[in-house]
Amino acid sequence: MSKGLFISFEGGDGSGKTTQFRLFAEYLRNRGFDVVTTREPGGTRISEKIRNLLLDPECTEMASTTEAFLFAASRAQHVEELIRPSVDAGKIVLCDRFVDSSIVYQGFGRGLGESVKAINDYAVAGLYPDATFLLDISPEEGRKRNGKTGKNDRLEKQSMEYHTMVFEGYRKLAAAEPDRFIVIDASAGIDEVAESIVKAFEQRYPDLKPQRK
Amino acid sequence: MSKGLFISFEGGDGSGKTTQFRLFAEYLRNRGFDVVTTREPGGTRISEKIRNLLLDPECTEMASTTEAFLFAASRAQHVEELIRPSVDAGKIVLCDRFVDSSIVYQGFGRGLGESVKAINDYAVAGLYPDATFLLDISPEEGRKRNGKTGKNDRLEKQSMEYHTMVFEGYRKLAAAEPDRFIVIDASAGIDEVAESIVKAFEQRYPDLKPQRK
Repeated sequence: MSKGLFISFEGGDGSGKTTQFRLFAEYLRNRGFDVVTTREPGGTRISEKIRNLLLDPECTEMASTTEAFLFAASRAQHVEELIRPSVDAGKIVLCDRFVDSSIVYQGFGRGLGESVKAINDYAVAGLYPDATFLLDISPEEGRKRNGKTGKNDRLEKQSMEYHTMVFEGYRKLAAAEPDRFIVIDASAGIDEVAESIVKAFEQRYPDLKPQRK
Repeated sequence: MSKGLFISFEGGDGSGKTTQFRLFAEYLRNRGFDVVTTREPGGTRISEKIRNLLLDPECTEMASTTEAFLFAASRAQHVEELIRPSVDAGKIVLCDRFVDSSIVYQGFGRGLGESVKAINDYAVAGLYPDATFLLDISPEEGRKRNGKTGKNDRLEKQSMEYHTMVFEGYRKLAAAEPDRFIVIDASAGIDEVAESIVKAFEQRYPDLKPQRK
C-alpha cells in the first residue's frame, strides 16, 4: 500500500475498548505493520493542552457548545499534525475514540444534534476513518463487566439512561454507515473478542501487507 | 426597551478602536444606560483560559483550523454566559471585536474562507450584533497613527499587504450588511471620531432611553 489506514475504536463504558485497542495494535505490529497508536481528546501537544482544559475541574460552567468546539479544536490539530501525515506515510493509525464519540456524547448526549457532525466535518477536513470498530455491549452487561452492581437509586438510574443513550447512539451510527463500521459483539471474553476483531480485519483487508522499509 | 442592545467595535491596526470603545461606553453611562463592556477573545473565565492557549508562545505549531475552533469555543462561552443574559436583562453590551474579526483575520487572513462564518453561526446561536461600528482607516494612515514609519523592507511590505487585506476584508463585510455596519471615518482626531460615533448612534436609535431601575 502506498497510503496507510486510519482505524478508530469506539464503545461505551465496560466495553473493553481500551484493552482490545492495545491487543489489536500488538497483533498489527507482530505482523510487521508500522502502527501509530493515539487517543482523543489528545494525541499532540496542543491537543493535550486542550484536553486539560476540557478536564479542568474548575470549568464546571462550560457551555455544551464550547465543549463541542474544544473537542473539534483538539481534533483538527490531531488530524493535521499526526493522523493525516502518518496515513500519508503509509502507516496504520489506530485511534482510541474519534468523531463518532463526539456525535454520540455531545450530539445525542448533550442534545446538540446535527451541529456536532457539521462542526466536525470542518475539523477532520475529509479524513474520516477507513474502518471503525464498535465494541457493542448492552449497558447492563457493561455495568456487570465494570463490577458496578450498586443499588438502583436515582443516580444509578440516570446513569443507566445515559449509558443506554450512548449504546443506542452508537448503533444508529453503525447502521447509517455499514461500510465503515465493524460491529463487534463485546460481551464475550477478552481473547474471543480479540479474535473477532482480527478476523473481521482480515476479512475486510485480505491482501494487506506491511510496506517494505 | 425590554431587551437591550448588543454593539461590537471592529477595526484594524491604528484605527483607534480601543480608545473609541472606551469613550463610547463613557457616553452611554453618562446618559444613564446600564452598560457591559467586554472583549474577544475573552470575557469569561473559561474564555480567558482559551485566550491564554491562543496566545501561548509555545503553541507555534497550531493549525489554522484549530485556531478558528478555539476562537469559536471562546465565543460560544462568552455569548452563553455573558452577552445573551446581559442583553436579555435590558443592558447595552459593548464588545471589542466579535465574529467579524474572525471572518477577517481567520477567514480572509488564514485562507479558511466561508467555513469560519459557518462555524461561528453555531458559536453565536443567532446572537449577531444589533450594530457594528467599523473604524475605517487606510493601512497607510493607520501606520502613521501608530508611529510605524520604518523602512520599506521585506517584512514591512508583507505587513502592509496583510493590513491591506484586513482593511479590504472589513469593507467587504460592511458592504454586505449595510443595516448592521456603521462605517466611521477613523482618520480624523479622537474627539471628532467620538462625535461621529455618537451622532451615528443617535440617528440609528433616536428613541432609546435608559430603563427605569
